[in-house]
Amino acid sequence: MKGVKISTINCGIKYKNRDDLLLVAFDQPANVAGVFTQSSMPAAPVTWCKKNIVNGKAAALIVNAGNANAFTGKIGEEIVNKTVDKAVEVLGCAPQQVFISSTGVIGEILNVDLITAALPKMAQNFASDDAAFNRAAQAIMTTDTKQKMISVSCEIADKKISIIGFAKGSGMIAPNMATMLGYIFTDANISSDALQKLLREVTEDSFNAITVDSDQSTNDTVLMFATGAAGNVEINDSESIELASFKIALKQVALGLAKMIVVDGEGAQKLIEIEVGGATTKSQAKEVAFAIANSPLVKTAIAGCDPNWGRIVMAVGKSCRETSPEKIVVKIGEYQLTKDGGKHPEYIEKLVHEYLKNSEVKISVDLGIGSEASTVWTCDLNEEYIKINKDYRS
Amino acid sequence: MKGVKISTINCGIKYKNRDDLLLVAFDQPANVAGVFTQSSMPAAPVTWCKKNIVNGKAAALIVNAGNANAFTGKIGEEIVNKTVDKAVEVLGCAPQQVFISSTGVIGEILNVDLITAALPKMAQNFASDDAAFNRAAQAIMTTDTKQKMISVSCEIADKKISIIGFAKGSGMIAPNMATMLGYIFTDANISSDALQKLLREVTEDSFNAITVDSDQSTNDTVLMFATGAAGNVEINDSESIELASFKIALKQVALGLAKMIVVDGEGAQKLIEIEVGGATTKSQAKEVAFAIANSPLVKTAIAGCDPNWGRIVMAVGKSCRETSPEKIVVKIGEYQLTKDGGKHPEYIEKLVHEYLKNSEVKISVDLGIGSEASTVWTCDLNEEYIKINKDYRS
Repeated sequence: MKGVKISTINCGIKYKNRDDLLLVAFDQPANVAGVFTQSSMPAAPVTWCKKNIVNGKAAALIVNAGNANAFTGKIGEEIVNKTVDKAVEVLGCAPQQVFISSTGVIGEILNVDLITAALPKMAQNFASDDAAFNRAAQAIMTTDTKQKMISVSCEIADKKISIIGFAKGSGMIAPNMATMLGYIFTDANISSDALQKLLREVTEDSFNAITVDSDQSTNDTVLMFATGAAGNVEINDSESIELASFKIALKQVALGLAKMIVVDGEGAQKLIEIEVGGATTKSQAKEVAFAIANSPLVKTAIAGCDPNWGRIVMAVGKSCRETSPEKIVVKIGEYQLTKDGGKHPEYIEKLVHEYLKNSEVKISVDLGIGSEASTVWTCDLNEEYIKINKDYRS
Repeated sequence: MKGVKISTINCGIKYKNRDDLLLVAFDQPANVAGVFTQSSMPAAPVTWCKKNIVNGKAAALIVNAGNANAFTGKIGEEIVNKTVDKAVEVLGCAPQQVFISSTGVIGEILNVDLITAALPKMAQNFASDDAAFNRAAQAIMTTDTKQKMISVSCEIADKKISIIGFAKGSGMIAPNMATMLGYIFTDANISSDALQKLLREVTEDSFNAITVDSDQSTNDTVLMFATGAAGNVEINDSESIELASFKIALKQVALGLAKMIVVDGEGAQKLIEIEVGGATTKSQAKEVAFAIANSPLVKTAIAGCDPNWGRIVMAVGKSCRETSPEKIVVKIGEYQLTKDGGKHPEYIEKLVHEYLKNSEVKISVDLGIGSEASTVWTCDLNEEYIKINKDYRS
């Protein structure tokens, strides 16, 4: 992608024989938008990014894997400052235009000298081709087993537009937290305000619609950069009709990356889509969907291909006080399981058991009290999850 | 316990070679109080009990194990009505004084004829001794591996008072829901209004302060009966100074039963106590405590004796927006792990690893923003949980 320069290196924070540091620099400062963890224990780089995102301009992005620089007190802030100072020195940009993410172990002091020593070398070795984006996607991995990258193209006012996104995260199930990081680049010319609105809207139905174990990282970050190199006239309104196909493309990138994170949860063998409809508000629908998605009883049943739909009813019952048994309809795949507050008379368990052997399964619930809907994604819960998270450091 | 008559039988709902039906009758209608699941999908017997608890009088209690009579529509209500009718016929009591609970599989039709055929036989075979209470505790078990019963005594105004409680529940982790049921009997003379307040207060810090996997059953029920046979002058005020030792004794029964439920969660190997202090309100403290208690990452770490305290910080961060890293203090046992927003300089991981090998472990968090506190209990999460819940019916 023109105007986006990428460099990766092994700087030795934790991993050997693979790159663990990413530097992205922009020919011209790009418009930038970001969404961050809601945690009251944000990592130092998150605090830094939150402070600077309001300026709407990015000259550089630095991401390290292997240490989260989280819960590291004053020293954590100093590490961020030293990293920024070196980037400013090397790239000649403004400090508030440098964005930083870290992912890895919590509470350990990051050796910042490894990063500051690497940055000058990295700045001598930029590339902008697809292979460089691939290397970027790999350099930010921690316990991920697969790299996660998607690129699509679309048009804005007859100009061809590219969107490339990459992400990391083992579905929040990785040892020591499993930060979810996502970065999306486009050459579209979109103002940072409009970009922020677009990113928020898309994140709500993608990165914020996935769960593996209901935990939220101290480091979660999604940043989106728009270079404007495609040459379209700047778009300031996120609701502009000119953005119609761009929005679809952007959603494809964000949702695709989000699903990749879910299915790469260690031990995950199934992608579970949970659609809740018939709700009075979208947030109510999402709350019920997450109650199902976060229920260990539902997730273990799916792991065992067991159509144990009583557990779905239980999750609905605990998360939505407004509905009642006669109102709801529960489906697994195309099979309707409930009717009139009881088991559907034509329900055949064996068929649903067979359906649940698929690697992608769908659960639908109609709450019967409205017309709003929401969809979330999760994975099954099996012995492998426990094994990985229990045996991590002992 | 005088005035409380107990009978159990194998009526054949699900189990062989063990009793699965309990009938309790009172010589004189007892004062009764109850707390029930908040689920919007309550089982038919729960709906029945909720309707009648306001009258404050109980003549009989019937509990069956093996079928929850939940999500069974109109038929479920009829099953309850038929059971009540038969109890009225056999015992000569008022229908609104009959309380019913069911526990077991959801969505299957309970064969009520098995219950109505058994009740007349049971009414011929009452007993009131300790052995009868033991049989009662056993008859209501589903996947419980141990019976759960506690009896204590205390005094009210120089009268000796007995309290006996029994419960069932595999910490909500049992297949198909794991209903938590608890029944407490006392010969104290306490009005049903005062009894209701006492039960609510005690439940908040016992049955409502435990979690295994954050799921809530459609059938959860705790009932408390006071026969008045001890002969003290009726107490109408739950805050009466005369109830001081009774309250302590009652709390001991409720909390003891609650902890028994947690440690009997299939696969559970450790009882984890989580105390959160320094909060602005008690409910805030409880919310954070439950966020820690329900985090699969925290629970798997404890299973592996891994002092992975970053996961505790994560759970605090996601559940309490008002605090910040410098304010909180995290302890495991007596070991302080954090200081000034970072790892405590004198923290020695090996010592905490050794401490976590105990079967009872304690996590404490001070939020540093107030003076309210709350304590909850949970168990560790290990491979056995997955195995049991995944392999149940396939």
